[in-house]
Amino acid sequence: MKERFSSAKQRIGSFLDDYFDEQEQVFSHVGRWPEDVFSRLREFSSRGKMLRGSLVVVLAQAFGRSSADAVRVGAALELLQSGVLVHDDIMDADDRRRGGPALHAQFARLGGERFGLGAGVCAGDVSFFLAFGLLNGCSSARSLIEVFSRETAALGFGQVEDVWLGESDEEPSAQKILSVYRYKTGRYTFSLPLLLCLSLVGREELSEVFGAFGEELGVVYQVRDDELGLFGSEQETGKPVGADVREDKRTLLRLELLRLSSGEDKRWLSSVFGSDVSADDLERVRSLAEELGVRAAVRAHASVCERRAASLLDDAAVPVEVREVLDWLVSFTRARSK
Amino acid sequence: MKERFSSAKQRIGSFLDDYFDEQEQVFSHVGRWPEDVFSRLREFSSRGKMLRGSLVVVLAQAFGRSSADAVRVGAALELLQSGVLVHDDIMDADDRRRGGPALHAQFARLGGERFGLGAGVCAGDVSFFLAFGLLNGCSSARSLIEVFSRETAALGFGQVEDVWLGESDEEPSAQKILSVYRYKTGRYTFSLPLLLCLSLVGREELSEVFGAFGEELGVVYQVRDDELGLFGSEQETGKPVGADVREDKRTLLRLELLRLSSGEDKRWLSSVFGSDVSADDLERVRSLAEELGVRAAVRAHASVCERRAASLLDDAAVPVEVREVLDWLVSFTRARSK
Repeated sequence: MKERFSSAKQRIGSFLDDYFDEQEQVFSHVGRWPEDVFSRLREFSSRGKMLRGSLVVVLAQAFGRSSADAVRVGAALELLQSGVLVHDDIMDADDRRRGGPALHAQFARLGGERFGLGAGVCAGDVSFFLAFGLLNGCSSARSLIEVFSRETAALGFGQVEDVWLGESDEEPSAQKILSVYRYKTGRYTFSLPLLLCLSLVGREELSEVFGAFGEELGVVYQVRDDELGLFGSEQETGKPVGADVREDKRTLLRLELLRLSSGEDKRWLSSVFGSDVSADDLERVRSLAEELGVRAAVRAHASVCERRAASLLDDAAVPVEVREVLDWLVSFTRARSK
Repeated sequence: MKERFSSAKQRIGSFLDDYFDEQEQVFSHVGRWPEDVFSRLREFSSRGKMLRGSLVVVLAQAFGRSSADAVRVGAALELLQSGVLVHDDIMDADDRRRGGPALHAQFARLGGERFGLGAGVCAGDVSFFLAFGLLNGCSSARSLIEVFSRETAALGFGQVEDVWLGESDEEPSAQKILSVYRYKTGRYTFSLPLLLCLSLVGREELSEVFGAFGEELGVVYQVRDDELGLFGSEQETGKPVGADVREDKRTLLRLELLRLSSGEDKRWLSSVFGSDVSADDLERVRSLAEELGVRAAVRAHASVCERRAASLLDDAAVPVEVREVLDWLVSFTRARSK
């Protein structure tokens, strides 16, 4: 299965290569920036895992419908994802992404902070506009764009909530955090590719099941993401370790750390979140997370969602080849190292 | 003609009212932000002139094709325009727009500067995603979205150039500035609505002429915009007077002021651009612009483009009712007070 995903990634990558070449021509009359922006987007996209795009391609194959349109939709998803990350890094003031400089940071190096912000916002916008253009070239364009427009708008609202939780003093409950994981991460990372695939293969009757499956899987993905943010390495994740702690991100891991700790540990943890943590501080957070059973607690949340995801599929008439892909996806999501 | 435009504006406004009501329902399960963001977008859109959207509606009528789709396309353009302004104000750090607080400034009041930035970027993104969704509901969706995707991407590149000129020490030539006016303002404000209208009424053979006509008209529009930025009132334009001077915006007006002044005036002008100008400073800039013939000089640039625009139409087989609308549009653009 891993090979199928990496072959899909390769196809999307080579599609995007040709696409960026072609678009450079299309926009060559619009001054100096198309060439610059496309070459950055090309490099930035190639650094990604392309999980969302590959999922569409592999799943369409499993439905017995390997088509050029699947690769095109995969490429549109990766353009979208690049744009989302560019805007996300601007909002969070993160300078590193995908193991290299964030896009706005590249622009800032070229023309200062304000140019970095402005050009980054524009480059993200351009990615979105072109993603819709790509979908528009597919034979099931109308159904694809309907899904894409609705789910990306929902993502936008989820992002607002995410920024709000990051900036306000509000202490969100576990339920609240899980709902962001479900409706932001889940619908965007899994439900959206799955629904697009259903549009491609004309199996929209599975939309409700696949949409809900994606939400459950989103919790598994995000819990693992939070874990990697503390226990992973920048080499693997592409992001600086401890950024979540430094930014005081309202993760489930943070909530459980504060809930399960007490006394001196709790006071120390409260002070360390949102501060400029050292490597030693991070090591102590990691030890506490192990000792206090925090890792086990967040994994338990993920396991519940994993079981729900499986039972959603049990009840639906999913072809066995498709089920195989989805089962692999669940295991991969639970255990991924980047 | 003025009545036709204001009736079109009303139809788009009432379409958007129903649309926002409906979308609030669609996204009611995505937490607290859809309601908040839609109510702000509703209010923000209603404060706009809706020139772009109305142009589609009035022109489709002149082609003898008054359809519900024309209003829908007009509404999509106004959603786009709101998103573009929201992002633009973030990039330029402008807190006022359309005679009221900019969107990011509203969010900043709610949750601080960083929340203002983040929620503003997201609200702009959501506007874009939904604009494509609106177009997708039209019967000529494919052709509309093709135009929309290409022209909005070109706008994005134009915006990058705009930010670059604003931030770098590069002194752009008149030709360079005019090319931004043509390819950014012109294609976006006029060519895009005109091309969408041609898709709607199935007259794509006029695309080249209308596209070029829009570019010429863009120069007329932007020259007037720069003039209003100095000589207009906030009450009329919705933006603080003198903002261009304060931000040292690379306008044609600024270039001509520096070119036609000399000695003490020139030295003073060079120091006043980009500084925190007083009302007296602005008054002196205005006097100099009159005395030195700067107003006449920039208007001359606009007149050249106006004549070119007219001769483009002379050579094309444009129905007389359509020509009437376009001629009115030119006069309006030249003389508008807001």
